[in-house]
Amino acid sequence: MKIARVSYRAAPRYGVVEGDRLRLLSEPPFEQIKTTNDVVPMREVKLLPPTECMNYWGVGFNYPSHVHQAAETSGQHIPKLPRPWLKGVGSLIGSEDPIIIPPEAGAVHYEGELVVVVKRKCRRVSPEEARDCILGYTCGNDVSEKKEWEREHTFWRAKGTDTFGPAGPWIETELEPEKETLTVRLNGKVVDTTSISAMIHKPAFLVSYMSTFTTLYPGDLILTGASGVTQAMKPGDVVEVEISGIGILRNPVEAERPLQN
Amino acid sequence: MKIARVSYRAAPRYGVVEGDRLRLLSEPPFEQIKTTNDVVPMREVKLLPPTECMNYWGVGFNYPSHVHQAAETSGQHIPKLPRPWLKGVGSLIGSEDPIIIPPEAGAVHYEGELVVVVKRKCRRVSPEEARDCILGYTCGNDVSEKKEWEREHTFWRAKGTDTFGPAGPWIETELEPEKETLTVRLNGKVVDTTSISAMIHKPAFLVSYMSTFTTLYPGDLILTGASGVTQAMKPGDVVEVEISGIGILRNPVEAERPLQN
Repeated sequence: MKIARVSYRAAPRYGVVEGDRLRLLSEPPFEQIKTTNDVVPMREVKLLPPTECMNYWGVGFNYPSHVHQAAETSGQHIPKLPRPWLKGVGSLIGSEDPIIIPPEAGAVHYEGELVVVVKRKCRRVSPEEARDCILGYTCGNDVSEKKEWEREHTFWRAKGTDTFGPAGPWIETELEPEKETLTVRLNGKVVDTTSISAMIHKPAFLVSYMSTFTTLYPGDLILTGASGVTQAMKPGDVVEVEISGIGILRNPVEAERPLQN
Repeated sequence: MKIARVSYRAAPRYGVVEGDRLRLLSEPPFEQIKTTNDVVPMREVKLLPPTECMNYWGVGFNYPSHVHQAAETSGQHIPKLPRPWLKGVGSLIGSEDPIIIPPEAGAVHYEGELVVVVKRKCRRVSPEEARDCILGYTCGNDVSEKKEWEREHTFWRAKGTDTFGPAGPWIETELEPEKETLTVRLNGKVVDTTSISAMIHKPAFLVSYMSTFTTLYPGDLILTGASGVTQAMKPGDVVEVEISGIGILRNPVEAERPLQN
């Protein structure tokens, strides 16, 4: 089942995607999926980020094909255990929303990733229990400034700058990620493709490990790491992150415009 | 004016502290301070964290007396510019709530700090404009695991573990922080005291600099850095962070108990 969060009549609503139509839910999808008889054309709604999360987590060093680049641009040694970080919630945007590059930024790379959507509040769950704490998966783009900012350790602006965290287009609740393929396209050209089975730390382990120390909340999002060698984007580009079985997260890239006084 | 966030009749409410009584507000204090005629004894309410923040920020390396210890325990060079990070919102607790140390943690230190409370949504504000984006100040304790976890760069569990972010007891809206003194007591004994005027990057600069890249939201909290050389706490300890003109943030320290099955 594909669950989208949308703006409908100027208010945020969740709904189940049925082809080119959306069946609205009567409440957020975390406790239960309660459908209504209200069905609206997808073209009449605007996609929003897939949840309104309390915490937006990222995890790096999670595909063998990416760890060496990550070590180089961040100045870190390749860690054995996951080393999550928090992206500011202001970085979260939905599909079709623009990634806006501030003039201070150097090389701003795409990082196409599988995103875990947390279903329930959990702390100290085993990997087995963690499976039941995952509502589903969506596509994410862990946009990252790699010229200098990744070396600032905390990634606060490297990955946390406003609009640097696209996620969407919606949540797929029945995915088995290991069977799926992740593809990144820059201006229509495939720049990375990987089987998600190449992931080092799997979603259930990530949820379990992170929950050892920090409570995860319904709607929290966890970016699970990029694969391959990423490239810089520039204003005018369009970047797409596609995961088979989910759909396409598509974002144009813009330069930040000076504020008008 | 001292504005507390409390649990009153099982619901969160803001109020103005009037001695041993609290005058309830009719709405959160960010747009305007709207008092009511409802006054309740402070002993009938429970203090909550001073806001329900979207982002809980920390800033390190901000007192000359602390930068060398910070460099040693984090493995970082002393940066010229602020290097903020995000504490998970699950770390935020109020005064009198226990700091709970997981069995996996090594040396868990107190870090008594001034906390900036953001008043309004802001992006790319000048230091001058930033003054108007600050609602007030409270006391904070940037509890940190310094044995190994601070070396994980992102501080996700070093500083983001549940309960590692006490703040309170309330917000003082008329403080001039540079005129005030910060004192930390461990089990009643003074372990650190500093004039806040020794701070390297001042609150208005921090708000301005951070807002260059990330939107700050009403209620966001910014820990502004510890002074001195911090020490480890152990279960049974009581830690107090006092700022003259604000009040005392007081938290007992407990060991995490295994979950009952």
